[in-house]
Order: sequence, then C-alpha cells, then structure tokens
Amino acid sequence: MKSILDIVSLSTAEIDQLMQTAMDIIANPAKYSNACRGKKLATLFFEPSTRTRLSFEAAMLDLGGSVIGFSSANSSSAAKGESMADTAKVISCYADIMAIRHFKEGAPLVASLNSSVPVINGGDGGHCHPTQTLADLLTIYREHGRLDNLTVGICGDLKYGRTVHSLINALARYNNVKVVLISPVELAIPDYVKHEVLNKKGMQYVETTSIEEYMDQLDVLYMTRIQQERFPDPNEYLRLKDSYILTPQKIACAKSTMTILHPLPRVNEISVKVDDDPRACYFKQVFNGKVMRMALILKLLEHPYEKPSLFEEGSEYVVNEIKCTNPNCITSTEQELDHVFKVVNKQHGVCRCVYCEKQGK
Amino acid sequence: MKSILDIVSLSTAEIDQLMQTAMDIIANPAKYSNACRGKKLATLFFEPSTRTRLSFEAAMLDLGGSVIGFSSANSSSAAKGESMADTAKVISCYADIMAIRHFKEGAPLVASLNSSVPVINGGDGGHCHPTQTLADLLTIYREHGRLDNLTVGICGDLKYGRTVHSLINALARYNNVKVVLISPVELAIPDYVKHEVLNKKGMQYVETTSIEEYMDQLDVLYMTRIQQERFPDPNEYLRLKDSYILTPQKIACAKSTMTILHPLPRVNEISVKVDDDPRACYFKQVFNGKVMRMALILKLLEHPYEKPSLFEEGSEYVVNEIKCTNPNCITSTEQELDHVFKVVNKQHGVCRCVYCEKQGK
Amino acid sequence: MKSILDIVSLSTAEIDQLMQTAMDIIANPAKYSNACRGKKLATLFFEPSTRTRLSFEAAMLDLGGSVIGFSSANSSSAAKGESMADTAKVISCYADIMAIRHFKEGAPLVASLNSSVPVINGGDGGHCHPTQTLADLLTIYREHGRLDNLTVGICGDLKYGRTVHSLINALARYNNVKVVLISPVELAIPDYVKHEVLNKKGMQYVETTSIEEYMDQLDVLYMTRIQQERFPDPNEYLRLKDSYILTPQKIACAKSTMTILHPLPRVNEISVKVDDDPRACYFKQVFNGKVMRMALILKLLEHPYEKPSLFEEGSEYVVNEIKCTNPNCITSTEQELDHVFKVVNKQHGVCRCVYCEKQGK
Repeated sequence: MKSILDIVSLSTAEIDQLMQTAMDIIANPAKYSNACRGKKLATLFFEPSTRTRLSFEAAMLDLGGSVIGFSSANSSSAAKGESMADTAKVISCYADIMAIRHFKEGAPLVASLNSSVPVINGGDGGHCHPTQTLADLLTIYREHGRLDNLTVGICGDLKYGRTVHSLINALARYNNVKVVLISPVELAIPDYVKHEVLNKKGMQYVETTSIEEYMDQLDVLYMTRIQQERFPDPNEYLRLKDSYILTPQKIACAKSTMTILHPLPRVNEISVKVDDDPRACYFKQVFNGKVMRMALILKLLEHPYEKPSLFEEGSEYVVNEIKCTNPNCITSTEQELDHVFKVVNKQHGVCRCVYCEKQGK
Repeated sequence: MKSILDIVSLSTAEIDQLMQTAMDIIANPAKYSNACRGKKLATLFFEPSTRTRLSFEAAMLDLGGSVIGFSSANSSSAAKGESMADTAKVISCYADIMAIRHFKEGAPLVASLNSSVPVINGGDGGHCHPTQTLADLLTIYREHGRLDNLTVGICGDLKYGRTVHSLINALARYNNVKVVLISPVELAIPDYVKHEVLNKKGMQYVETTSIEEYMDQLDVLYMTRIQQERFPDPNEYLRLKDSYILTPQKIACAKSTMTILHPLPRVNEISVKVDDDPRACYFKQVFNGKVMRMALILKLLEHPYEKPSLFEEGSEYVVNEIKCTNPNCITSTEQELDHVFKVVNKQHGVCRCVYCEKQGK
Repeated sequence: MKSILDIVSLSTAEIDQLMQTAMDIIANPAKYSNACRGKKLATLFFEPSTRTRLSFEAAMLDLGGSVIGFSSANSSSAAKGESMADTAKVISCYADIMAIRHFKEGAPLVASLNSSVPVINGGDGGHCHPTQTLADLLTIYREHGRLDNLTVGICGDLKYGRTVHSLINALARYNNVKVVLISPVELAIPDYVKHEVLNKKGMQYVETTSIEEYMDQLDVLYMTRIQQERFPDPNEYLRLKDSYILTPQKIACAKSTMTILHPLPRVNEISVKVDDDPRACYFKQVFNGKVMRMALILKLLEHPYEKPSLFEEGSEYVVNEIKCTNPNCITSTEQELDHVFKVVNKQHGVCRCVYCEKQGK
C-alpha cells in the first residue's frame, strides 16, 4: 500500500484486511499501544476540521506515536505562497506519515507524488474523503456482521455530498446491496454516479423524494448534512435545509435492527431526540473512524513508502493539451504543475483530470 | 467527583484533598511522571487563552499523558454549526478527559451532561473559572500555611471579574476571613454577591475606593485587570483603567508577609517594578495553577465518569416555561436545549437559569 | 551557553561543537531518542511559520521530549495586551525551554532577560534567525566537508533578507571564504554590512547584477525569496520578483560539486525543474535544520539556565536618553521597557539599540 487518496483505489481485500485489524485493535487495544513509538504523524489541515483532525491525532497517540501539524491554512506556509509539492517535501523531513485536508481537489495526490512518506487524504474539497468511508463501512460491519445483502437508504444532499459518492462506490463492491436514494429533486444524485457506478456495477437502486416511503425496508439509513458552503444560492439552501429532518416519529416503522449513520457534524438533520434510540449509531461511527485510522496508519508504516505514479499502465493520457477549468482543482493554484487528463472513453473523447476527476473539454 | 464546573460544587474536604495532592506533587514530581501514561486530555478552547490552555497541557504532559485539542473557535467544528452537546459526544470518543473554555456561559455544563468522560470548566464567559480559584487558594495556602484567619484585599474590577466572585465564594467556607473590597464606585461588587455570599455566610467585609486605606492590614492583596471586553462603553474603560495601579510606593507600608496575587494577564495594574519584591506572588500563582490542574486531572481519572444530573434532589425547577434572556448564555445558541430554571426563593418567585445563573423573569 | 538570540554571539568553537553533535545525531539517531524524556519545549509563534515551528517540534519529539505552544498571535495572550516579559515568566512555569518567533525585533532578547529557562530565537522580524543560519552551515559542511576555502554566491534580496546578513556574518569567521553578491541594484547589500562585516573581517567580495557572471566559479549558490512583505511599494515588488529565477539552463555551466541552497519557502525563485538536479540541496537543508535544532536543544538543556545581562562588560551604554524610532522594535510596544543603546563608535557618536540594532539618533 502506498498512500490513501481515494476509496476506489483500495482493493476489497485491502479494505477487509483494514477492518480485521480494526476489530483486533478494539478487542486488544493494549497490544497496539506502542506500535508506533518514535513515529510522527503530521496533520496538515489547510481547511479546519476538528473531528477529522482530532480523530487522526487520537489514533496516532493511541498507537504510542506523536503528532505535529497545523489546523488552518493561515498558520501555514501556504499563506506565503508555498506550493503543495514543496510543503510535502518539507514535511517529509519532519514526519513519518502525513494526513492532509485541503480545500483544493487533488492536493493530497500532488503531495503523495512529492512526499517521501505515505500520505492520507483527510478530505480534499468536494472530491474524496476515504477515511470517512472506512469509518462508515466498519460501523455497518460491526452492527450487521456483514457488508452484503443490505438495503441502504442515503438521505439528504446527494448532489454535493462527497461522503455519499464515496460510500456508494465502496458498497458497489459487495453483493446484493440495494440503495434507496432520498433527496429533493434539486439535490438528486448526479448522472455520472448513476452511469459510472450504479449502472456499471449493476447495483439495484431507487430514487425518491420521501424519507418515509421505504423506511420499513432499510437496514441502514445514512443521513447527510445539507452544507451551506456547497450552495451558490443561499436562498436555495434556506428553503431546503429543513427538509428531511429525522425524528422519532419517522423511524417508528423502521426495523429494530436498522442503523442510523451520519458523517457529522449535524446541524439539525437528525433531531436530538433520536440520539437515545438504540438504532442511532452516529457517535459509534466517530469511535470507529478513530480505529480505522489506527489500522490505516499501521498498514501504511509497515513497509517503506513507494511513490505512486501519475500514469497507470495500459491507460492513455493527455498532457498539457487541455487545461482543467475547475476552479477548485489544485491545478488552478499549484505552480509548474502539468495539466494531465486520463482518457476514460476514447471513442467519445471523454477524459478526466487526474487530480479532481472533472471532465476535460 | 464528576466534572469540575464551578468552585461552589466542590466540598471543602475535596478542596483540601486536592491541595494535599498538589503539595505532594510539588514535593515528589517524579512519583507522578507516569501517572497518566496512555491517557489523553482534550483542550477545547472556543475562546483563546494561552495561559490557561498551556497550563492544562503542561499539567497533562507532566503526568505522562498526552494532549489533543484546538485553540480557537474558528478552527473547530463549531464554525460549521455543531452543538456543544455533539462536540462533547464526539470528543468522548477520542479523549479520557476534557478541559473547555467557551465564550458562552454554561457551555461546560452542557458538555458534562453529554460527555462520557469528565469535563473541567476552563472558564465560561463571565460565569465561572474554578481552576483559577484553585490556583489562588493553593498560592495563599503555600505562602501563609493556612486559609483561615486572613485579611484579603481584592482590588480592581469587582463588578465584572469572575475570578473575584469565585474567590470570595471559596474563601467564604474558611473561618475568620475578612475581605476588603477596593474598587471605583462604578465597578463595585454586585448586590447579589453581598446578599447571597458575604451576608449569607456572615463574612466580615468593608468597601473602599482607596487602595491605600487598609494596605497595612492586608495578608493578601488580590489585584485584577480591568477588562476592556467587559465594558459596554469604551470611554468608561479609558477613564478607569489607570486607577488602582500598584507601585512600590503603595506597598511600602504593607506587611512584609503580605502576598500579592493577580490572575494574569496584567496590562498595567501592577507596575513591573513590583515584580522583584518578595511579596509579589503572581508568577508563583501560575506555577501553582499548573500543579492544581495536575491534582484535578488525577482525581477525575481515579474513578469511572458519572454523568451529573441537571436536577438536584430537593430542589424545584421550572422547565421551558420562561426563557433565559442572557445573550451570553449557552441557551441562546445551543439547539434543542431545554430552558431550565432553579427556584432559589419560592416566596419571592426568584429563579436562576441552571446554565448561566442569571435570574429569570 | 545561555540563550540563542543571534549567530554573532556564538563562538566558532560553539558552532563547531553544535555541528559535531548534529553529525553524531545523524549517525546514531537512536542514541538520542530519549535524551529529553520528560522535558517540554514551548513554541511561541507570534507570527506564523509552519516550517520553523514544525522543525522545532519534530526536533524535540525526536529527542523524546514533548511540546506545547501556539502558532499565531491571535490565539495567544498577546491579544489581551500581555507583555513579552510576562509571557516569558509565565511560560517558564510550564516548559523547560522555549523557541520564539515574533514580528517585533528584539522580542526574544526581552524574553531571555525575563525567562528562567533558555530561549531560542526562531526569527524576530527582519532582525535575526540564527537557527536558519545553523542549518545553512551544516548543509555546506555536510556537502563540502569544510566551511573554509569556498566561493559562495548569494542571490536575490540582499537588502531586506535577514538570512543573508546572518549567513555572511557566520561565514566571515572562516578562512578564505569569497562572497559573490548577486542582486538588482535596488536590493543590494546595505552599506553597514559592507563596513561592519565584509570590510572589517577582510572578506573578499564582489557585487554583480548578473546571476550568470560568476556561476562557473561558485561552490555554493544561496538563493533567496524576494519577500513581498518587506516592500513598501508593491509595484517595485512586481517588477523585480521574477528577476533571478534559477533554471536548469542557468546552472548548466556551474561546477558539478556546486550546492544550491534556499531558506524556503520559495515562490518561484528556483524552477521546480531544478529540484531533481543532484546539486539542489534545499530540502536536505530542511532536514539539517531539524538536526541542528536537536543539537541546540540538547546543548541548552545541559546546564541550568543563566540569565544574560543586557550590559556587556567593557561596553558603554546610553539608557533612556534617546528613544528607538524603529516601529518594528519591541521597544515600540513593550510596556515599562528601558530604551538602551550600546555605543559602537564613541568618536562619531554612533550607538545602536540593544534590541533591534538600529542606529540611534
């Protein structure tokens, strides 16, 4: 294993192995309390996120290691115009592994190409957040004893929510997982997720605007926050934010074994009154996230770091012929960075930026 | 012991025990250097405070434990609208104990009701700051060998200064402590402190606007800062801030055993020229604060955490009938939080908000 | 050794000893991994600097110690108006050693006069940055096996660049070091550096505006960033910033043993295309900086702290007769601080502020 940049690049065997390590950590925490003695994790949070940052830090401390880092871009060298590549090279002189959260999509990939220690993506803009998905999977696995044969409702912002797309991607590899997509029309799942994941992998799915319609059939209900920062129009946010609030009434007809998940922070998508229901698992999910990060750190420090290649064998690329126009892509700010697109469909001339995965034109 | 939210809820026996532990830590630091090995303290500082935060962190490190946390609200999830209750539940998955400083009064109480690990109040707005008071008491005890039979001058901002009110509350439980209240008329001690503490406990006290009048009688002189942020009118601040500056001249007639305290930071209330006087104890107070925090962490981690109840047996409460109108109370922002008032005087219909202690109407 | 405030106050023997310790740390890291067990470093960064702060923190962790601190002034007590002197006294109660970066020149000196633990200057405004210079020296020594008989090109902002002045000062103590000063006329080396260092020490030097002119003669090429924040006029910055960009073409004629250094962060002074050239040593320099900080921490913790004196024996001083007019000097903000000038040339009435070294009038 090299760096952890997205969930798709992990094999099912690797995910299963991480979950087995996590289960063993939960069963025998003392066995791991010195596993990373003398090792240092750097947490590079260009965008604030208490929960994710502290989860990584607690994980490293529970392994006996220590932590350096920063919690916002303005206390970093980025404020002086330093590139992501240089930051990664510098941090490689200080730490044994690094976790990066960045507002620019693809920033952790740029870091991993320049680092000499493993890089974990702790969330890059609206792009990927693989350790959240690993926390989700472990929680489902611990509560249900399996990751196949499940009906999973996913509710809220299915258009902008990166955790949703990652979760669907991850579940697609397990057998007989049905997905119920619950959202207002304006926030429905994007077409490319339907085409490139749901249809391609042959997952059963259904779309609905009603949170109640399929409630009694769900094994898992994954609630998400409607994030103000993703909306171009604040009025659209205000009109929609109170839709789909989960209350004790709405889960009255649900299975007693249903598990309610949420990537947190919640604003009011789940009423506080649901918290004491045994089906509420979103705080267990927080704990599981810490354990999965422990498993991941252990795994990544097992072998010397192998720098990844930007170019996969057998794929075709277009270099510096077209430019990525996504303003949130790392290519929009990183100096002297080649614009590289992977050809995903040669016949129709479709290619995607290797950093942010947006389609090139 | 459960959580440490205010000084009033500690029994005198508990305070005395904490001081004995502190004295033992000072005498035998090596004995404690591994006492919290493998434990984590979370420092949640929604409002910056270098001194208090670093004191907690140094305390935990000196016990062999480790620290995670944040130092301002904008690098926390609160910026994304997360409630105090949810933050407390999340941090409980990462740490064994937490210290909270918050600009909202009652925030640490809300945290302790939702946490599954002990909570220490590191200052909640103008409300309470119990670990400062514990530092004050240890300093007086170490310098005088006792906490009774003392004449204590308290000078400066007696109206807004939370450390002053806490100190008076704490001293009220010891025998024969006389208090000299020194302040401009505009910043005099509030009536409710007179009624509910000084008179109720039968403490001797005298009020004066002159710092010199009782100087030769004082065993302790507690200076406080006139805090600009507490003043609605900046001109009132400018006119008063230079009153009551302590100089070598003013303490010339004081006892040689008098001890000068200050909660720090000072701006100019005590001239730098006083620092080399052997009676100046405000930097010893800083050291004592760290030791008391060590004693407190040790004590709180001794037994599994018991969640406190909002409702004390034998007391009467009013729930959601009236609303707390204090804009600095946690009830003004925390979602789905009941407004609860404790009836303190049934005859006159007096009740106080359980979070901020402001009187309800 | 007391505190490390500038490079000039270190003797050549002390520098050599620090470098020998650093070489031993690199050869035997395990030998030092518990050297500071139980000790605490405080990193007080009133001005953000990821690289320098994390370098100090990684250094202390690699010695088995631990770290407390803050990374910007607004999360510190300075925001409440606390003086540098008081901050130093407070931190002395928490930590065994402190590293300070401050936007005010002379702030670390004020700290060291009030601290009871050693102080390391981590950069004070445009004044000094001794640990950067130690990193530079170690890198040259490791790459060339010597610090004498070298031709050193220094390129970029020679007027405002504090690292440049420190490096010249440091190199002046070694034999037969020739300096090639490369800069636009507007950013040429100040006259006082010529008079007080280059001429006084009899160093050979030459000035040029061309980066190519002496390229084939250089053993070391030290590139520096043109820092926007040092320019009163932003247009002057824009016009000059792209001059003197190092490219593979420009170093084609250089010696194969030439080493390229840069204090970092770079913006675009060195093309990314130079990074893979074996002569590029600026990331090795980052690693060497961490090791030199380890050596320095070890050295400073060897003996109990001796507070320095502001007044050197045999020198003459002027106290509170003239005022320092440098707005970036710590005297402009620190309360109750004497204005002290050292007479450097009695005949011509030249004296320099002991804090910022600016000439007094």
